[in-house]
Amino acid sequence: MIDLYTWATPNGHKASIMLEECALDYTVFPTDIGKGLQKRAEFLAINPNGKIPALVDHDGPSGDITIFESVSILLYLAEKTGKFLPEKSEDRYRVMNWLIWQAANLGPMMGQAFHFYHYAPHRVPYAIERYRDESSRLLSVMDNQLSKSAYLAGDDYSIADIASFSWTKFGLKFLQEETQGKLPDMLHIQRWLTEISKRPAVQKGVCVPDV
Amino acid sequence: MIDLYTWATPNGHKASIMLEECALDYTVFPTDIGKGLQKRAEFLAINPNGKIPALVDHDGPSGDITIFESVSILLYLAEKTGKFLPEKSEDRYRVMNWLIWQAANLGPMMGQAFHFYHYAPHRVPYAIERYRDESSRLLSVMDNQLSKSAYLAGDDYSIADIASFSWTKFGLKFLQEETQGKLPDMLHIQRWLTEISKRPAVQKGVCVPDV
Repeated sequence: MIDLYTWATPNGHKASIMLEECALDYTVFPTDIGKGLQKRAEFLAINPNGKIPALVDHDGPSGDITIFESVSILLYLAEKTGKFLPEKSEDRYRVMNWLIWQAANLGPMMGQAFHFYHYAPHRVPYAIERYRDESSRLLSVMDNQLSKSAYLAGDDYSIADIASFSWTKFGLKFLQEETQGKLPDMLHIQRWLTEISKRPAVQKGVCVPDV
Repeated sequence: MIDLYTWATPNGHKASIMLEECALDYTVFPTDIGKGLQKRAEFLAINPNGKIPALVDHDGPSGDITIFESVSILLYLAEKTGKFLPEKSEDRYRVMNWLIWQAANLGPMMGQAFHFYHYAPHRVPYAIERYRDESSRLLSVMDNQLSKSAYLAGDDYSIADIASFSWTKFGLKFLQEETQGKLPDMLHIQRWLTEISKRPAVQKGVCVPDV
């Protein structure tokens, strides 16, 4: 059995979508980040970095295993089940390229854009422009990639798509609103979002936690 | 033979240190980001995201293979050589946790701190404090982890250490200078930096490119 500590955020949904896609049994421990539960000692014992999602698999390679960072969770579950990440081949590293691209670029930069639009105590035009422009550039890179192949890393749906799906769905919407439609259409991303949104596992995963 | 497109930055040094650690032959293609070479069409054909480092291995799983994102390069080379990343075991995922932690946290946040201290056209106190504080918090998380084990993911040096080494060495120095010594001592990090700095492969890797 797997314990998932999570909340309804783009990073949280990567983990719940993957668990649903792999049809694994898991127990959800809702971890309300609005109340700061991810900074409590019990949670820090699981993820010393104090961020959701985190996961404890009681059937790990040698008993209990703790995984933190949403992209580390995707890698762990992909290798546990043999799903959504090819083994040793060129295809494997195409997935890795786009998976790490999400972890190091799309996630952090959209996170900053959202912070400066919605959470910063006063308006900082320079920072808003910086993160809006970088997020838009990243979406354009992705849209161009999706003009060449069905999924980010080629013909097959992979953990690279799961990693980028929730941030893209969320980020595209809020950037379109904030820029009042000045963002390019991103038609290839729209096609990809529509397709992934139809997957039953995704529809379940984005409702976790159910609180 | 491997072609490495890189420049003397913390992300670039992850790749060159790993190539040296694995004793692989490689040709360096210096890609001067000050001149914007990473945004030229020739480079975008290798990494559509327009950032160094990127690598082409002419002896990939099925011929030429292109790898971009420094942490994707670390994963690729670790699996190619069987070094610095254990196979299928709990140890493997300890490395993954800290490797992805670097990619998604330490690198992006220190990058933002450096930007607002050194590159932003005017001083933005809110952003400076935000990224200084987050970078300091991340260093404390790392220092605490290194109080418990010799290396980030346990007893053995791994790609998690290679990923964090160059950002930590660079970031700790500039944050100490900018905060005029107000940063905690980070003694465990200091011990770890000293040890890793002694490795011959690291000493070679941080001199790439030699321009």
